[in-house]
Amino acid sequence: MTVRPSIVRLLRPRSIAVAGASAKKKSLANIVLDNLARYGFAGALHVIHHKEAQIEGRPTVASVDELPEGVDCVVLAMPAKAILPAVEACAAKGVGGIIIFSAGFAELGEDGRQAQERIREIAHAAGMVVEGPNCLGMMNYVDAIHLSFSATDQRDIAGPGIGVISQSGAMAVVVRGAFHGRERDVSYAISTGNEAANGIEDFLEFLLDDDDTRVICMIAEQLRDPQRFLALAGRARHIGKPIVMLHPGKSGAAREAARTHTGALAGDNAVMRAKAQAKGVTLVDTIEQLIDVTEFVQLYGFPSAPGLGVIGESGALSAQLLDYCEEQHVPLPHPEGAVAEALAAIAPGFINATNPLDLTAQAMINPDIYRQAVAALEVDDRIGTIMFGISLTSRTMAKRKLPPLLEILRAYRPSKPVIFAMVGDDAEIGQELIGQMRDLGIPFYRSPERVVRALPVLTAPRSGAEARRLPAPAAADLPEGTLSEAQSKTLLAEAGLPVPPFRAAGSADEAAAAAADLGYPVAMKVLSAALPHKSDVGGVFLSLKDEAALRAAYEELHANIARLAPGVTSEGVLIEPMARMGVELIAGARDDPLWGPVVLVGLGGVQAELLKDLRLLSADCSEAEVIAALEGLNGAALLKGFRGAPPCDLPAIARAVCALGDFAAAHPQVAEVEINPLFAYPEGDGVCAVDALISVRKEQE
Amino acid sequence: MTVRPSIVRLLRPRSIAVAGASAKKKSLANIVLDNLARYGFAGALHVIHHKEAQIEGRPTVASVDELPEGVDCVVLAMPAKAILPAVEACAAKGVGGIIIFSAGFAELGEDGRQAQERIREIAHAAGMVVEGPNCLGMMNYVDAIHLSFSATDQRDIAGPGIGVISQSGAMAVVVRGAFHGRERDVSYAISTGNEAANGIEDFLEFLLDDDDTRVICMIAEQLRDPQRFLALAGRARHIGKPIVMLHPGKSGAAREAARTHTGALAGDNAVMRAKAQAKGVTLVDTIEQLIDVTEFVQLYGFPSAPGLGVIGESGALSAQLLDYCEEQHVPLPHPEGAVAEALAAIAPGFINATNPLDLTAQAMINPDIYRQAVAALEVDDRIGTIMFGISLTSRTMAKRKLPPLLEILRAYRPSKPVIFAMVGDDAEIGQELIGQMRDLGIPFYRSPERVVRALPVLTAPRSGAEARRLPAPAAADLPEGTLSEAQSKTLLAEAGLPVPPFRAAGSADEAAAAAADLGYPVAMKVLSAALPHKSDVGGVFLSLKDEAALRAAYEELHANIARLAPGVTSEGVLIEPMARMGVELIAGARDDPLWGPVVLVGLGGVQAELLKDLRLLSADCSEAEVIAALEGLNGAALLKGFRGAPPCDLPAIARAVCALGDFAAAHPQVAEVEINPLFAYPEGDGVCAVDALISVRKEQE
Repeated sequence: MTVRPSIVRLLRPRSIAVAGASAKKKSLANIVLDNLARYGFAGALHVIHHKEAQIEGRPTVASVDELPEGVDCVVLAMPAKAILPAVEACAAKGVGGIIIFSAGFAELGEDGRQAQERIREIAHAAGMVVEGPNCLGMMNYVDAIHLSFSATDQRDIAGPGIGVISQSGAMAVVVRGAFHGRERDVSYAISTGNEAANGIEDFLEFLLDDDDTRVICMIAEQLRDPQRFLALAGRARHIGKPIVMLHPGKSGAAREAARTHTGALAGDNAVMRAKAQAKGVTLVDTIEQLIDVTEFVQLYGFPSAPGLGVIGESGALSAQLLDYCEEQHVPLPHPEGAVAEALAAIAPGFINATNPLDLTAQAMINPDIYRQAVAALEVDDRIGTIMFGISLTSRTMAKRKLPPLLEILRAYRPSKPVIFAMVGDDAEIGQELIGQMRDLGIPFYRSPERVVRALPVLTAPRSGAEARRLPAPAAADLPEGTLSEAQSKTLLAEAGLPVPPFRAAGSADEAAAAAADLGYPVAMKVLSAALPHKSDVGGVFLSLKDEAALRAAYEELHANIARLAPGVTSEGVLIEPMARMGVELIAGARDDPLWGPVVLVGLGGVQAELLKDLRLLSADCSEAEVIAALEGLNGAALLKGFRGAPPCDLPAIARAVCALGDFAAAHPQVAEVEINPLFAYPEGDGVCAVDALISVRKEQE
Repeated sequence: MTVRPSIVRLLRPRSIAVAGASAKKKSLANIVLDNLARYGFAGALHVIHHKEAQIEGRPTVASVDELPEGVDCVVLAMPAKAILPAVEACAAKGVGGIIIFSAGFAELGEDGRQAQERIREIAHAAGMVVEGPNCLGMMNYVDAIHLSFSATDQRDIAGPGIGVISQSGAMAVVVRGAFHGRERDVSYAISTGNEAANGIEDFLEFLLDDDDTRVICMIAEQLRDPQRFLALAGRARHIGKPIVMLHPGKSGAAREAARTHTGALAGDNAVMRAKAQAKGVTLVDTIEQLIDVTEFVQLYGFPSAPGLGVIGESGALSAQLLDYCEEQHVPLPHPEGAVAEALAAIAPGFINATNPLDLTAQAMINPDIYRQAVAALEVDDRIGTIMFGISLTSRTMAKRKLPPLLEILRAYRPSKPVIFAMVGDDAEIGQELIGQMRDLGIPFYRSPERVVRALPVLTAPRSGAEARRLPAPAAADLPEGTLSEAQSKTLLAEAGLPVPPFRAAGSADEAAAAAADLGYPVAMKVLSAALPHKSDVGGVFLSLKDEAALRAAYEELHANIARLAPGVTSEGVLIEPMARMGVELIAGARDDPLWGPVVLVGLGGVQAELLKDLRLLSADCSEAEVIAALEGLNGAALLKGFRGAPPCDLPAIARAVCALGDFAAAHPQVAEVEINPLFAYPEGDGVCAVDALISVRKEQE
C-alpha cells in the first residue's frame, strides 16, 4: 500500500467535509469551520449534520453518504461510538483522508483497541489515510488550512519552515507556539494521536518530500514501524533535511507511562537511540533542547566545529561559563595566533584575548567592538558558534545596548552561527527589540546556560553518509539456547575475533594432556550450556601452575558443581593458557526484534560495570565510530595510557566490535553475544575475548 | 577592628558626598545625583567639584577637605590616580564609608595592587569602610538610596527581601534585575569590586543583622577571609537566614580567569564547597539556579521533602519529565494509599492516579480539578514541592486557562510550595497574567525543565545545626615530610583506625621471624619515606606463602630498589599478614591552608579512581553525613550488597572517616593523609586501612 497521494489529499485538501459542528455551541468542529472561514478556504467545504439544515451560515448534508464522491479530507469530531460507521461511509465515498479528534480508543482498553483495529482495516482496504483518533488535527501554514480545534493564527511562511509531527496533540501545539513565539516559520504541525491506520512515519514521508519544510521536529512516544522510520531517516540524511527528535523512554517509568498513554509497548530506548543516531537523526532529551536545536538548525544548519566563542562583558560571567561549559562538554577554544592578535588589538589594556571574551564596558563606548570581536572569532576553525552573553536588566538598558548591536548585525552578517543570550533572565525588557533580533535570523535566549545545553546536541558527531555494509544472513546451523563457552568461542574465532587457544577435555587425563600441549599456567572452566555463570558455582580455576594443581582443581571443580548446581551434568572442562592481562572491557551484540542488530562496548571490571560506562552502536557502525564511542566513555583515560601504561590498541577494539556486528547480521537467530572480559592490549597487540557467551533464539520465539 | 557601625553608615547614610560629577555631561557621578534627586534623599547631600560652583543645580564644595566632619558616605567617581589623596582626605574628615567606582587597581597589575593596599591601610587605620574600587556601588531599596551608576528604579519592599552581594557589579545588577522582573523584593544589591579594604564578608555581616533581608544571594569569585565567612555562614544558619551562593571555580580555567579578573589566587573550590555546605550554605552552579533557588527560598524556605508532585495535562510531557527527573535525581513519588484514592476520585475514567498527573483536558471543563489535585498531593509526605506544568502557547490560550487557576489559588493557599511552569517556552502570552501569578507569591517559570534543575539544590541534605566537635590541636612531635607506612599506620592506629598488625624488619632474618609470629601468607613492603609509590619500584610483594618465598622476595625487593630507585636506602621492610579482601575504598584527610581540615572518601580501584567517584566533607562532619556521602557515590550500589555480596559496614566506614577528621584537627602540622586502599567488610566486620601515607608540613612552610 502506498499512502503518499492520500497523505497529500489530507494535508493539502482541495475539498473538505466537517462532521460534528453544532448550531448551538462552539464545539470542536465549529472551531475548524471558524479556522477555514477566517483564512478563506477556497475549495469545496461540506458541513455534515444529521438534523440542522444550516451550521455557521452554511448549508449542511445529513451524512457522509450524501457527500459527493472523492472529498479530499473529512474531519470527524463526533463521539467515539459514531466514528466506525462514518469511517466506513468515507471509504465508500472515495475520501482521501480522515481526521478523527475523538478520544476513547486504544488508550481506554481492549474494546477501544478493537475499534481502532477496525478503522485500520477499513482505511487500508480503501487506501484512505487516517490522522488520529485521539488527535488534535493538523495545521497547514503553507495553504492556511487549519483542521484542528486548537486556536491558531495563520502565519504565512517566508521560506521553507519547520515541520512538526507529534503523537501528542498538546506537544505539537506547544512547539508550534514556541517557534511562532520566536518568529520562526512553521510549515505544518501534525498530531497523529493513537495512529489507528497511519503513524508518524507516513507524515514524516510527506514532510521529507515537502519543499516548504526545511527541518523536521518530532516528538515520538512510540515508533510503530522502526525499520520504515530508519529508512526514512536515511533518506532525510541523504537529501540533507535534518530530523530533530524527542523520544522519551530512557527511564523505565517513562516507558511504562508511554505504554499506558499510547496503548502500545515501548521499544528499547537505548537501541532506538543507537539506530536513529546512526541514520543521522538528532536526538534531544528535553523540550527546551527540542525547541532550541530545531530553531538553530532551521536558521543555520549544524555548526562547523564543536567550539563556542563567547562575547561577554563580565568577568564573573566568564568564570561561570568556563565551569558550566566544562561540565556540559562544550569546548571554549582559547584564542591563539592571528585570532588572539585580532582580539588583543580591539582595545589594548582593556580587553584581553580570552574566551569567553570580556569586553568590559568598552562596547558601550564604541559598539564597533562587537563587530571586531565577531570578525576575530569567525576565523577560528575550532569555533563553530558565536554567542553574545550580554546583560540586560531593564527596558532602559536594553534600549541603550541593543540598537547599536542590531545595527552592526544588520550591516555585517557573520559567516558563522550567532546566538544572542541575554543575561538577566526574566527582567522586563519588552518584546520589540527581541523581535528585531529574531527578525535578523538570530536566536534570542533568556540565558547563556541554555545555549550551553543545546550545543552538545548540535555538535555531537553525526554519523557519516555511508554505514558499513553488513553481510547477508548466513545459513549457519546453530544449536538453540545458550551455547557453551567452547561453542561460543569457536563461532567468534570464525567471525574473526581473537580468542585464546583452548581445548575441551572430558576427563582429568584429557585436561592434563591439553594443558601440556597448550603450556602452563592454564585456566580451567566447566563446560556446560546450563551454567552460564560458571564462577558462581565454583566452575572456574585460574593460574593452574602444573599438572598436580590441575588435577586437584579438576576434582574440586566437579565437587563444587555437584554441591552448588546439583542435577547439572558438566560436559567436561575447557582448558586454555592464561591470557596475558589487558585493560578489561566488555563487548557484545544484540539483535533487537524491532530495531535490528546493535553492538555495545564499554569498560569492564565490577566498578565500571556498576557505573554502566557503556556505549551502544548500530551493528553497521564504522570502526571510526567505535573509536569515537570509546573516546566518549567516562573512563576513556584508561584506554589512553593511564598512569604510565601504554595506550590501548583502539583500532583492534574497533575491529572486534565491527566483527561482532557482522556476526550478528550474518546470524539473525543469535539473540545476544556477550564478551566479558575482552582484554585490550597495547597498540599493535590487539585484543583477546577471554570469556564469551552466545544465546541463540529458540525456533518458536 | 569592628566594621559594623561604618558599614551601616555606608549602606544607610544620613549624609552623602559625591565627587566626580560633571557640569557638562552625564558622568557616573551625575547618575548617582539623579538617583538621589529622583527618590528625594532627605539627608545632607554635598557635591564636590574643584572648579564648578554648581552641578545639577546644587552648590559644590571644592574638595573633600571642605566637607563638614563626619559625612556618612562619600562616593568617589574620579580617575584612579585621584583616588588615594581623596581617601586620605576622607579619613581625616571622619567619613564613615567610601564607594570607589574607578577601575585601574589590582586588576591591572602591581602598581594598582600597591595603591589598593594603601587604600586598605588608610581605611583600616581610620575605621572607615570602603566599597570597591572597581565596583558598581550599592542599591538600597529599603531607604531608596542608590549610590550606583547603574540605572535602577526604586521599588519599595513589602516585607523582608533578597539581599544581593557580588564582587562583580554586572552580576549584582543582573540578579537584581531578574528578581525585580519576577516581582520579588530586593533589600540591597551591593557590588564589592576589588575589595581593597572590605570584602563580601563585611557586607554579609550587615545583611545577617538586617531585618529587611530574608535571604542572601551571593556571587563570589573569591572569598578573601574563608574562616570569617564560615563563621558568618554558621551564624546565618543559626538565625535561619539562608545564604544561596554561586562561586565559580570548579574548572581550572575558571580559577585562572578569577585570578586574572580579581587579581587574587583562588582557593580550592572543592574544599570551599565542602566547608560552605557544612555551614548550611546553599551552593548553586549556574546563574539560572541562583535566581530560581533564591526566589524559591525567599518565598517558601526549603521544601519539606525531596519529591516533586507534577500536575500536568499531557502524557507526552509526563514521559519526558519522568526521564528528566530521573536524570536530575528528582524523585516523583508514585501516588499510594489515600493520595492515590483522592487522585483517582477526581475524574474516574479520565484521570489516573499517576505522578506526573495527567489532567487531560478535564480541568478546562472544571477548573476545580486543579484544587482537588493540589489538595491530594499536599498530603503526600514524600512530596515537598508541587509543580503545575501547563501548556500556554498564545495570549488566547493563556486568557482561557490562567484566570480560573489564579482564582483557585487566590482562594485556596496550598500548604506546600507551588510553582507554575509554563510549557510553551517563548510563546507570547503577555506579561499581565504572569504578573498576577507572581503577585500571588507563586514562581512562574518558562519551562518545567528549569524547575527540575533547581530542585536538587533545594532538596540537597543540609548539614545539621551542630557539627561534631573536633579535638584541640595536640602537642604531638611528628617527623617532617612524608612518613613511612609503618609510622603512618602507627599514628592512624593510635587515632582509632583499624590497621593490619605489622612488624618492621631490618633483615631477612627479622622478616622471617616477624612473618612466623604474624602467620603466613604475608605481604612485604619496602619501608622508606623516600618511596611513597612503593609498587612502582618493585617494593611490594603480596601473598608470600612461606619462609622460602619470603626470603626470595626480600632479595628481589632490594634488587628492585637498587635498580629502579638508585641512591635510596631502604629502612628495611614491613611485614603484615595478608588482609582479607574487602570492597576497595579510598579515604583521606587534608588540611587546607585557607579553609581548614577536610576529609574525603570514595571508591578505590583504578577505574573508580579514574572516574573520580569521591566525596569531600568538612572534617567535623557527622557519621550520618559520611553515610549520606557514601550513599551519594555514583557507585554506591557496590557498598549495598552488589551481585549478592553482603552489604558493607557503612557505620564503620563513617567512624573511620570521622577518626581521620579528628586526627587532622589534632595534628594541624599534617598536610595530608591518604589511605588507599581502605578495605570495607560486611556489616559488623568493620574496615581495615591496608596502606596509608601521612605527609607532615615542614616547619618553614
